[in-house]
Amino acid sequence: MPSLPEQIAHREVTDADVRRSYALDATVALAPPPDDFTVVRARDLSDVVAVLEHAQATGTAVVPQGARTSRSGGAVATEDCIVLNVEALDAVHEVNELEGYAVVGPGVVNADLKRAAASAGLFYGPDPASWETCTIGGNIATNAGGLCCVKYGVTSDWVKALQVVLPGGEVMRTGHRTAKGVAGYDLTGLFVGSEGTLGVVTEAVVRLEPAPDPALTALAVFDSLDAAVAGIVALRRDPHRPCLLEIIDRTSVRAIQAFGDFGFPDDCAAVLLVQSDRPGHVADDVARYAGLLESAGATDVAVADDAQESEALLAGRRVMSTAFEAMGGRLAEDMCVPIGRLAEFVRGIEAISERRAVLIPVSGHGGDGNLHPSIVYSHDDPDSLARAWEAFDDLIRLGLSLDGTITGEHGIGSVKVPWLGLELGDAELDRQRRLKAVFDPLGIMNPGKVFPAAPR
Amino acid sequence: MPSLPEQIAHREVTDADVRRSYALDATVALAPPPDDFTVVRARDLSDVVAVLEHAQATGTAVVPQGARTSRSGGAVATEDCIVLNVEALDAVHEVNELEGYAVVGPGVVNADLKRAAASAGLFYGPDPASWETCTIGGNIATNAGGLCCVKYGVTSDWVKALQVVLPGGEVMRTGHRTAKGVAGYDLTGLFVGSEGTLGVVTEAVVRLEPAPDPALTALAVFDSLDAAVAGIVALRRDPHRPCLLEIIDRTSVRAIQAFGDFGFPDDCAAVLLVQSDRPGHVADDVARYAGLLESAGATDVAVADDAQESEALLAGRRVMSTAFEAMGGRLAEDMCVPIGRLAEFVRGIEAISERRAVLIPVSGHGGDGNLHPSIVYSHDDPDSLARAWEAFDDLIRLGLSLDGTITGEHGIGSVKVPWLGLELGDAELDRQRRLKAVFDPLGIMNPGKVFPAAPR
Repeated sequence: MPSLPEQIAHREVTDADVRRSYALDATVALAPPPDDFTVVRARDLSDVVAVLEHAQATGTAVVPQGARTSRSGGAVATEDCIVLNVEALDAVHEVNELEGYAVVGPGVVNADLKRAAASAGLFYGPDPASWETCTIGGNIATNAGGLCCVKYGVTSDWVKALQVVLPGGEVMRTGHRTAKGVAGYDLTGLFVGSEGTLGVVTEAVVRLEPAPDPALTALAVFDSLDAAVAGIVALRRDPHRPCLLEIIDRTSVRAIQAFGDFGFPDDCAAVLLVQSDRPGHVADDVARYAGLLESAGATDVAVADDAQESEALLAGRRVMSTAFEAMGGRLAEDMCVPIGRLAEFVRGIEAISERRAVLIPVSGHGGDGNLHPSIVYSHDDPDSLARAWEAFDDLIRLGLSLDGTITGEHGIGSVKVPWLGLELGDAELDRQRRLKAVFDPLGIMNPGKVFPAAPR
Repeated sequence: MPSLPEQIAHREVTDADVRRSYALDATVALAPPPDDFTVVRARDLSDVVAVLEHAQATGTAVVPQGARTSRSGGAVATEDCIVLNVEALDAVHEVNELEGYAVVGPGVVNADLKRAAASAGLFYGPDPASWETCTIGGNIATNAGGLCCVKYGVTSDWVKALQVVLPGGEVMRTGHRTAKGVAGYDLTGLFVGSEGTLGVVTEAVVRLEPAPDPALTALAVFDSLDAAVAGIVALRRDPHRPCLLEIIDRTSVRAIQAFGDFGFPDDCAAVLLVQSDRPGHVADDVARYAGLLESAGATDVAVADDAQESEALLAGRRVMSTAFEAMGGRLAEDMCVPIGRLAEFVRGIEAISERRAVLIPVSGHGGDGNLHPSIVYSHDDPDSLARAWEAFDDLIRLGLSLDGTITGEHGIGSVKVPWLGLELGDAELDRQRRLKAVFDPLGIMNPGKVFPAAPR
């Protein structure tokens, strides 16, 4: 690999073990990292510019990354690449209460942005489960969602404007800080969700709203899946949208209870968790939600009276990921289907689990139709991993057959590259490659991610 | 011009007078329409495909249009073009209460979409002043705003997915009907606000929300502009955002009162109109808004108790456009500046009015910083039109100097083409032309609109 120019050479990570730690993200079951790659920890805009000038001049691949919480291999190193880590661009430059926005570096942790907003009485919506570690740059790269999307939407609904460095080092700006603006194309939405394939976000202007009230939780237990889905449908039709609406299926509940007693009955078909944060109406809303869930067939509903009880009801949900770890390795899924197809989707997952002889606990953002089936395999049984990948493929095709998408909020990364064409078709893949080339003519930005190699 | 192929020839408008009426939109002071152009009224997707196949094969320019309510010359015919009118694609295909969206043709009138949503207890936000005539296709083309944007955002905040026909006739789809989705680039935001320069929208999936309560209005009178702007700032900081926050300046108030007595004092500096539609809290909110406006220095505040009084307070605002017509011709402006720069902006407009010796009534969406100064000229005095254009240029430069944009919601169209480079810079103009070429390699889509001719 060509050596780094002097102005950024001192940003290179040289310790071998530390360097290796930047090659991977939170994705499991990937190929081992390559031997040859360089890691640069940028400290400011000029470092990012220098790396992208150098990369363009030498035809070197660049893998932009932040906190490496990707579940789809979006931030993993590839052979001979420069891993460009921007975690250190972590300043909250401005919280503008009057205009209703914050200006932040890409390395700002999601929870830190939420706290900075809260200190001005404001609120930033998107809340990926990894919100205490994931960064806004990565949230933008994957158009990340989270638990409150059912009311507050996804990252793209909150990004007003971006500063991006392109291959070659050009600094471009998208969008507007003003409330409205239609001067030329707004390229903000093109960059949100582009997974580092177009350029490197170095600053984002994100919308802030007045802060809602602290949320309260209701938890409902169901002895049939149909009843739980009927509960979701009833809540979606309420005139006041919950700010959280999560589903946990039987297999997930069992895993949680095997980990510790969080009060779930062993034999329930599903649990729903629902919250309201509507100013002045939190208690009315959760009481009304509880009534709707009872009418939908819940066998038991608990309603929190205060923040402590509210948190206790969420405790099982919060340990779920850790509880799953005891089960073995997991391939993380992320399909999003219409609410009206949720029941078919969950039943289809059960059928796949049976056919492929793998456990598939299902949980996720039921109110959005965005579920995260986890396909469990044994680290000691290569055949179980092969069956898990077969189930992975089955699940993707099932989601598409129900008018869903193969990724709701994790992105394509490196894991789902073989399936993107199934959803978009060849003509669209080809068009999107040509769009990429407008920004990245040499194809150096995060190559091998998102798009399959073009057919010859 | 090459004659239309047989399959769409019967959609051509042949009557000379009717044909001529399709050459213009609602923009004033434009050059007269060309002599040679063809008008096709498409009835369905296949007509649009046929026109774009033919246009690409023959290198013919296409001007897509709906209700022709553009204020920036976005829909006017150009020499030898095909005007492709899609008003007849006016079906509301689906209102999906559970998923929270509607599927509509581009010819659906904004108010008809709102009514279709309301009949399912739902709400579509954007409300351009021309909402009873303008179509969703045009709203998408200009990323239209309106009066309620201060709370509900602009068209791009409501469009989930599009069906678009590209030059050559390819039908492409953008976005997702599901709540989330990040499979490949989301090109929806690129098409919203693209003013017909990329392709023709033939179907849109728009987000719907639970309906708010019927709004109530408060009207506040100010004897200083600073006090009125302080009122806007105070309302922006309220935890419950108004759903309408309009400003009408002294010159506009005088024009309204000259038209009829709508109860405004003759000598006020400005009037603010504000509304709440927050479910269960409309009366509390407007009472609180009234208190904030009094504290900000309003000399008089009227608060509506019911829908009839509410409408009466808006009556002056509603006749404003008609009242202005008595003053002469008007160049419509549409800058959007930060709320924090509003006072400077309005004072700068007063200075320009004086320097160029033209009347410039100022009104608009104060809560968004999106004002519509109208530069008045006399139809009988060519010199006043020349001075009006000088003031037009001054206003644009003033808006940009205050970190604003040259168009908040009307678009660049043909009127503001010479100024787009001032806002975006040459590198960005060039990049956006290259992006356009990915969809429209021959440059047949709405040529002469938005982008200035590339320098040789």
